[in-house]
Amino acid sequence: MATKQIGSLVWKHAAPIQIFGANTGVGKTVATTLLLKCGLLGRPHYIKPVSTGDAADEDSLHIRKFVPSVNYKTLVSFDIPVSPHLAARHSKIETPYTDNSILTALHDELVKLAALATPKSPIHPLVECAGGVLSPGPSGTLQADLYRPLRLPVLLVADHRLGGIGATISAWESLHLRGYDVVGLIVFQEQVFENYKYFRTYFKTRDVPVYVIPRTPPPTNSDKALDLFSMQRYYEQVVQHGGLLDFTRSLSKKLLARSDRIEHLADRTESNIWHPFLQHTERSRDSILVIDSAYGDYFQSPAPANTRIKTMSTLVPTFDGSASWWTQGLGHGNPDLALAAAHAAGRYGHVMFANASHEPAVELAERLIKGSGPGTKANKVFYTDNGSTGMEVAVKMALKAAARRYGWQPSDDIMVLGLKGSYHGDTIGVMDCSEGNVYNAKVEWYKGRGFWFDFPKVKMSQGKWKVIPPAGLDDVFGDVQEFDTLDDVFDRAKRTEAAEVYRGIIDQILKHLVSQGNKFGALIMEPVILGAGGMLFADPLFQHELWQATQRLDQGPVVQIDAERDGKLDWSGMPVVADEVFTGLYRLGHRSSSHLIGMSPDIVVYAKLLTGGLLPLAATVASKSIFNAFLSKDKADALLHGHSYTAHAMGCSVANKSLRTFGHLERSRWRVFQKRYRGHGTLDEIEETVPHLWSMWSPRFVSELSYRHDVEGVFAVGSVLAIEMKDAEGAGYTSTASIGLRDKLLLGHSNINQNVHCRVLGNVLYFMASLTTEVGTLMAVQCQITTALNGK
Amino acid sequence: MATKQIGSLVWKHAAPIQIFGANTGVGKTVATTLLLKCGLLGRPHYIKPVSTGDAADEDSLHIRKFVPSVNYKTLVSFDIPVSPHLAARHSKIETPYTDNSILTALHDELVKLAALATPKSPIHPLVECAGGVLSPGPSGTLQADLYRPLRLPVLLVADHRLGGIGATISAWESLHLRGYDVVGLIVFQEQVFENYKYFRTYFKTRDVPVYVIPRTPPPTNSDKALDLFSMQRYYEQVVQHGGLLDFTRSLSKKLLARSDRIEHLADRTESNIWHPFLQHTERSRDSILVIDSAYGDYFQSPAPANTRIKTMSTLVPTFDGSASWWTQGLGHGNPDLALAAAHAAGRYGHVMFANASHEPAVELAERLIKGSGPGTKANKVFYTDNGSTGMEVAVKMALKAAARRYGWQPSDDIMVLGLKGSYHGDTIGVMDCSEGNVYNAKVEWYKGRGFWFDFPKVKMSQGKWKVIPPAGLDDVFGDVQEFDTLDDVFDRAKRTEAAEVYRGIIDQILKHLVSQGNKFGALIMEPVILGAGGMLFADPLFQHELWQATQRLDQGPVVQIDAERDGKLDWSGMPVVADEVFTGLYRLGHRSSSHLIGMSPDIVVYAKLLTGGLLPLAATVASKSIFNAFLSKDKADALLHGHSYTAHAMGCSVANKSLRTFGHLERSRWRVFQKRYRGHGTLDEIEETVPHLWSMWSPRFVSELSYRHDVEGVFAVGSVLAIEMKDAEGAGYTSTASIGLRDKLLLGHSNINQNVHCRVLGNVLYFMASLTTEVGTLMAVQCQITTALNGK
Repeated sequence: MATKQIGSLVWKHAAPIQIFGANTGVGKTVATTLLLKCGLLGRPHYIKPVSTGDAADEDSLHIRKFVPSVNYKTLVSFDIPVSPHLAARHSKIETPYTDNSILTALHDELVKLAALATPKSPIHPLVECAGGVLSPGPSGTLQADLYRPLRLPVLLVADHRLGGIGATISAWESLHLRGYDVVGLIVFQEQVFENYKYFRTYFKTRDVPVYVIPRTPPPTNSDKALDLFSMQRYYEQVVQHGGLLDFTRSLSKKLLARSDRIEHLADRTESNIWHPFLQHTERSRDSILVIDSAYGDYFQSPAPANTRIKTMSTLVPTFDGSASWWTQGLGHGNPDLALAAAHAAGRYGHVMFANASHEPAVELAERLIKGSGPGTKANKVFYTDNGSTGMEVAVKMALKAAARRYGWQPSDDIMVLGLKGSYHGDTIGVMDCSEGNVYNAKVEWYKGRGFWFDFPKVKMSQGKWKVIPPAGLDDVFGDVQEFDTLDDVFDRAKRTEAAEVYRGIIDQILKHLVSQGNKFGALIMEPVILGAGGMLFADPLFQHELWQATQRLDQGPVVQIDAERDGKLDWSGMPVVADEVFTGLYRLGHRSSSHLIGMSPDIVVYAKLLTGGLLPLAATVASKSIFNAFLSKDKADALLHGHSYTAHAMGCSVANKSLRTFGHLERSRWRVFQKRYRGHGTLDEIEETVPHLWSMWSPRFVSELSYRHDVEGVFAVGSVLAIEMKDAEGAGYTSTASIGLRDKLLLGHSNINQNVHCRVLGNVLYFMASLTTEVGTLMAVQCQITTALNGK
Repeated sequence: MATKQIGSLVWKHAAPIQIFGANTGVGKTVATTLLLKCGLLGRPHYIKPVSTGDAADEDSLHIRKFVPSVNYKTLVSFDIPVSPHLAARHSKIETPYTDNSILTALHDELVKLAALATPKSPIHPLVECAGGVLSPGPSGTLQADLYRPLRLPVLLVADHRLGGIGATISAWESLHLRGYDVVGLIVFQEQVFENYKYFRTYFKTRDVPVYVIPRTPPPTNSDKALDLFSMQRYYEQVVQHGGLLDFTRSLSKKLLARSDRIEHLADRTESNIWHPFLQHTERSRDSILVIDSAYGDYFQSPAPANTRIKTMSTLVPTFDGSASWWTQGLGHGNPDLALAAAHAAGRYGHVMFANASHEPAVELAERLIKGSGPGTKANKVFYTDNGSTGMEVAVKMALKAAARRYGWQPSDDIMVLGLKGSYHGDTIGVMDCSEGNVYNAKVEWYKGRGFWFDFPKVKMSQGKWKVIPPAGLDDVFGDVQEFDTLDDVFDRAKRTEAAEVYRGIIDQILKHLVSQGNKFGALIMEPVILGAGGMLFADPLFQHELWQATQRLDQGPVVQIDAERDGKLDWSGMPVVADEVFTGLYRLGHRSSSHLIGMSPDIVVYAKLLTGGLLPLAATVASKSIFNAFLSKDKADALLHGHSYTAHAMGCSVANKSLRTFGHLERSRWRVFQKRYRGHGTLDEIEETVPHLWSMWSPRFVSELSYRHDVEGVFAVGSVLAIEMKDAEGAGYTSTASIGLRDKLLLGHSNINQNVHCRVLGNVLYFMASLTTEVGTLMAVQCQITTALNGK
């Protein structure tokens, strides 16, 4: 079921503040009472999302007594005075509170309050949390994790007691690394330990204003009337004192400015930023997607002018429908990845990798090599920073290995083989590996150095999987091939006839090319799907046969430069480079996309998902034969390539954590999708030699799309969904079809309270989930896609 | 004065354990007593680095009573029972305890104890810290920061009380992000709040074993003998119980395996890693620098076999003398940068930048543009991942701008101008911007596309700064020019004659090149120093004149494609690209190295120091004119370049923090170096129009080097020191001179307890400090350099 999405809330005239204590018993209630009393934060609104025990009642009484005008609200309460996770377990509640139910209740309450604010009477509802920053909530989730989707600005009430310095700074660090903005620290002026003095200095350089509260009068504990009187005097005196007013005034000003600051960011972007892949005459402040924060599958972004979302918040939750340019794997703001990164930053910072080594880099290399599965050629890992540089390295490796085998000189005009529509990155060297197209044709120094095969494409249409021959070549390739399941398309044993046809075509072309004197140093392919080329789903059988054909290719005699070394070559014809930057590491539901097409690459390149979607890092994994091609007594024969941050410890550590997590997901969470995809039977059937295809997108939804009159074809594999729209104007990257759909999706849906952001490649509208996206989230997105297609 | 370096300590048969409490009062002493008593951790050694108040005495009595055989040592003690930073302030001590004095005392004590360990009797000295993880030490430094250089494995005693879950997890996070290995958690089995149950689940997935201790018997508080007896019974029972033995056995095993694991890392590297820029026939397990951790200016690395360092520790502190491939700016493991990174990871993870935007990226762009100083052309920032891709973008920008101005077609053979020996990165496109050399000559697809000027070089020799004409060209360039100060070399007003000579030479060559039909799309230069080319210090006057000459160059009529746009061009001749990847952002002591040579670049590229030395990120900063050259109604005219992690939030956030810190250092810490460099006068004199050169390396030391018979020349600018050795075999990248020196430095120095790691470029031995390196540290390194030069 599609669940309502909870996002970050920011209004022009209402800015809630979340109060966290550095520990229990630090005086949160007194601090909160002061803030409510001082008047500068608007009419006093107070929300306690979760309260436990009598103490909660006492707090409530205290606040109501000293701030009689307070609008006081408790959302969830338990009688037992223990941590909410224990209280919840031991209470007799029929429907247990989930994180989402608490979050939704708080969200809705804040939306309701915000409607009361006006330009002249802004308000700052205070949300006071139980216990300390990382105390567990009712479900056991740590509070600071539970409330993260709202990302409310935080006031931290420090611990003024012995040990309180450390406790407070640790609490601040825990908030900080979860992406919270800690907008102020409040601390009692305790005169023995003087923690407040330490905080003033410590937090000054960390941009956290510190407000020091005088201590409360000691209670008599016998004369209640006197105690009440002295507390009343206390509050009055503190409120009248300039310090509190200054603190709250500047706090309120800062918080109310947040909306404007977010909105202003588009202008600042327009003035200072040169965007990637954009014709800037098409850019305007309104076309820029400002992202204030991101969590899970969602950006928190300013609502478009005609939004359908009713919270009136400056920010709305926006589904990250391109998985942030295909990088996202474990959700935005993932706290485990953030901690893995922080640990590496603390342990190493960055350390040079030139002839040096560190544990995270070695562990990752081992993981990549071992994870390549049985029969792999993977033997050595070379690190760079992104897919493009990873591919530059792969090309250098392959060309050198081929050149050494055949005795070619660097000055020879060596070419590559590939598929039409391929794209491998933006640096000049790998641009040259693609045929001239809209990305590269106008780039000075670009020179296509290869031959690119036209190939049959896979798509679903009218509920059937079809393999469609290249336009105008059906006389050579034969008719459209139809299949009931995607598994059948990938099952080479069932397609021996087509294989023979492909072999004939490919061998003939290659023979002709070589006979004309061309030298080929590499076959370079994205297995299964050509991403940037337009989400082209290649017939896996054709890719397999092309690889086989290159291995059979006779490119002249082998020059034995070094008998021992070259005798061990495990490739013939030419090395194959698998560009798995987009297709690898489970983007298509499987660890290796080469394996899906039955290919054993000599070189594989990984990036994007390698770090789970957090940091730039690429790995070029090569076979022993390829590695050996660079060995000699001469330094100049080595692969003289390397970037300053090669194998940076943070990237490698996060990658290790990500790969471990992917492995865990494969054995657990994805089973739900796999079961649904198969429709019947148990998952035990899935353990077999031919890898089974599956998708996170609903098969029924995909099938329904395939019947639409406005859809040319559709496919879903792993976390990818691609919808090819019928386009009267003709296809291509410059096409403007699908853009209307994309814009509709960005207007959002009021019931599920979310926008959908997606990217368009010509007439293809594609969607990409994270590898942790839930079924419910995708159902909501699917529902919005259908609505948009229906023109609403 | 050179201070003794304190490094990480790991022995084969001794492994100290640091005990931290999640807060005060969590039962550290009982936990420690149990560990000491159980016997599995070897003969009981206990160190309290800092103790305060009577409680300390009580702890001491307690431990001595129940572990009579303990070797108990307190290093620093105060009477007052408050946090050490207060106790220190209020105690009457003649010599105040510094972080270094405490660290040294602890280090020396541990070294002494380790000598007692044998293969049959390994030991685990316990180091118990005061208060909580982040409680301040005597100087006010947070304890977890104070002890970081030792990076001892940590046992964390959890808080079992109400609020203790949050307090403990926060404390763990604070340790984790400082790079500590938390090897276990100990917690009391409190039965109301049951924190221990929560910890068992929470820390299972975080690889932290949890040991649950039974609660201590409640004291009678009246019958001391009975209390003593019941505690005795308690300890005996817990020690006999299998749980503690299992826990300590596996802990001890793990810790003692650490040495082997570190040593084994070289083999694992050899098996799995393809190193950058290395001929692997020269690699062996002994040649690989394994880095276990890094802090400040130091790697912690296995000692070479013939080390001069006497601690017998597997690890020795090794000065990172190449600033980790020129990246390091604010010290390894810098906690502020780690936190800035973690905050961005928590707030965003990575979010796509295609037509999107976020605050850290925009703030950084503004900072880079504004920081470029008055008269700059900087207007738009394009982000990529490393210097090479940043330069690819710069070249694409420049060539397109030139092509549009002159109406050249992409297929035209457009060239670049530069200096001989230049190097701009490893991707094919920017390799083509350099003349054929050892890095690129054997690379398939490399094709030098330009003309490269030979140029006069600057070095100090015999105490004088000299500008030396290119070999064999002194008839054209004239004699060697001599100067007293480096400022004089950079003072163009004083060098009008030389300028005229340079102008004549350059104009003549350019005229000739153009008359032959060559088209030049860019001048590409590293201002001041050509780094990878061999630390070539170019005459700044020559670079300035070359730039001026390119602006005067007539390359044919200007094609007015778009009058409004092209009318505003602020460059003539050709755009200039300043490659400040190495030379910019204060590496040479100044924000802009272009400014040092009096050049206003149209495009500037930053990387390396941009993130303070933590993460890959590059910025290509372009002028408005360059940006405008890509504007049209056609998408294909845009700069169609972009990487998946373009402008990743972590990189941008860390860069913002780093640039702020550099600015602060410029106004504070570097004044010491600047004053020393000037030798006399006040720093007020330094505020003037011609930027003054300065260096972190001692001017007297540099001058002394320049008089050596084995030194050809030397220079120091900013944090860079380069020593050109006289080399009978001839220069070049393949030279092996200086390698002997490098290897000597790696053997270390026993008095100052450190190795020096540096890199060699042919016959040039260079050293690069971080921008936060202290005078004392550099004195130690200088001392070691002199010793090595003297053959010791």
